[in-house]
Amino acid sequence: MNMNLLYIGACRENLETYYPDYIKGIFIDGGVTHETLVAVIKEHGINVLMVDVLDFFFTADLLEKVKDDVRLINFSYQSIESLVDLNAARDFGIIVKKLPRDIYCKEVAEFALAQLLCACKGSLIFDRDMRTGVWNQAAHTNLSMTGKTLGIVGYGNIGRHVATLCQTWGMDILVTKKDLDTPPDHMTPYYRFVDLSTLMAQSNFIVLAVPLTKETRYMVNQECLAKLKPGAIMVNVSRGDIVDEEAVAHALNSGVLYKYCTDVFSKEPVEKSHCFVNNPHTLLSPHVAWATKMSLKKTYDIWFGQTQI
Amino acid sequence: MNMNLLYIGACRENLETYYPDYIKGIFIDGGVTHETLVAVIKEHGINVLMVDVLDFFFTADLLEKVKDDVRLINFSYQSIESLVDLNAARDFGIIVKKLPRDIYCKEVAEFALAQLLCACKGSLIFDRDMRTGVWNQAAHTNLSMTGKTLGIVGYGNIGRHVATLCQTWGMDILVTKKDLDTPPDHMTPYYRFVDLSTLMAQSNFIVLAVPLTKETRYMVNQECLAKLKPGAIMVNVSRGDIVDEEAVAHALNSGVLYKYCTDVFSKEPVEKSHCFVNNPHTLLSPHVAWATKMSLKKTYDIWFGQTQI
Repeated sequence: MNMNLLYIGACRENLETYYPDYIKGIFIDGGVTHETLVAVIKEHGINVLMVDVLDFFFTADLLEKVKDDVRLINFSYQSIESLVDLNAARDFGIIVKKLPRDIYCKEVAEFALAQLLCACKGSLIFDRDMRTGVWNQAAHTNLSMTGKTLGIVGYGNIGRHVATLCQTWGMDILVTKKDLDTPPDHMTPYYRFVDLSTLMAQSNFIVLAVPLTKETRYMVNQECLAKLKPGAIMVNVSRGDIVDEEAVAHALNSGVLYKYCTDVFSKEPVEKSHCFVNNPHTLLSPHVAWATKMSLKKTYDIWFGQTQI
Repeated sequence: MNMNLLYIGACRENLETYYPDYIKGIFIDGGVTHETLVAVIKEHGINVLMVDVLDFFFTADLLEKVKDDVRLINFSYQSIESLVDLNAARDFGIIVKKLPRDIYCKEVAEFALAQLLCACKGSLIFDRDMRTGVWNQAAHTNLSMTGKTLGIVGYGNIGRHVATLCQTWGMDILVTKKDLDTPPDHMTPYYRFVDLSTLMAQSNFIVLAVPLTKETRYMVNQECLAKLKPGAIMVNVSRGDIVDEEAVAHALNSGVLYKYCTDVFSKEPVEKSHCFVNNPHTLLSPHVAWATKMSLKKTYDIWFGQTQI
């Protein structure tokens, strides 16, 4: 079958730079409307959608309009419950593919810790000051990791790997997971399971690593943030909508939350006017936790490898 | 005995901010000449020197001039072989004190890892770009830690703790130490001892954690750097003079060394014209690896606690 690919929201520059051979279709911006998408699909005879955008939802209504054209929706994500009506896709005979669950959990866990350490140690501030000729040892006293409490929200592959990486760091490690009553499937001698409230109240450092679902959307809201241990540092390598971004910005500005390191945003690419972009208490990155040289190749190999139907 | 303290090179702002009770003497800049130092000691009846400067050497000649005044030289460092002629001090009856060896090895090891991760993951570049409105996922592909080789130069408390912190990171860990023929004093199932040349040739990431002695001064010179695995990242939490700074700058500019993260410099405070300050391949900090809120208090408690003679 002849495959006509449409890339939705994919970074063309990235593909052209690293994987020119993989460009086998046309590109459309992730901010597209349903109407335009349907028109492009009909005009170009598209039968495969290559989706790399987080704030576009494939509704049942939309899927019905393209059910005679599109054979495959191929997501460059692992967690897609918030991106497509899976029941409707099945009913219309549209195949939905995603990336395997464990494809880069190690890279994302490493990135979470990099950002946490960076925030604790003041790496950016020290480097910036040194480059302007300021040798200031007094202003930015950094934080010890040893002796602190690390809270990991989410017991998937990423959360588990964060715990593994910190196993020998002399931290008390707390983990919360979806169903606390179900015992874990392996020995966990070096961390304890607690509920989210306990985790928020006891942790100096918090890593968010849950998939975005109906249950987790805005789970870190004003009420949840009110339970925070003052001076906590939070790292989000999950999805932007896990948190209520305005509530997080408020917690930062009031000083309850010391720093918020996030790789993900409610809307991506983020706008310059976003409440995190001009905030001195944030550490920002453009959804790249997964994107190491090693994992980028692996991801594209898999994503493009599963375009056949 | 009445103690008259002279602080040499100490950060007065730091003391005033965090430990005002500890200010029990006068301050003099670390760039002082021998003549001025002798004059100040005589004029103010100083009998205790509180030393917090790295590029001032207490020669036998200097010590002789103050032997009737100074009873104690109290260093805020752990490794002082490069700072004072210990034999002369003993001969002149001047007590020399330093900080205990293991006082903040954990903090320094954590800092080394923070800077390494920061360099691998591109934390600074991503954050800087995001703040200028640039959402660039393509330009700064970050590096995976897992599967790489980490080389630790020095098997003291800091080097050992770096190995401990990285025990579960899926890296091959190499360690070099002073006397490779002496077996280690504990089980080391997760790292291997090699000589410096092997470590340089095989490591993707290198952490320098040796004391500054006659043997280690400029150990990372042009010849040593020529053995580097191309694209390596080096972190120095030791002393500036462990490396030949000009040779390191050359390795950075030629691309053999990908990044150099340093907390220490040949001369501190560093000058703005220093070859590392304007280099885009460095990650800089002002000798603060040890200085967390926890360790700062511990350090001052010990440093000031041992001013009695």
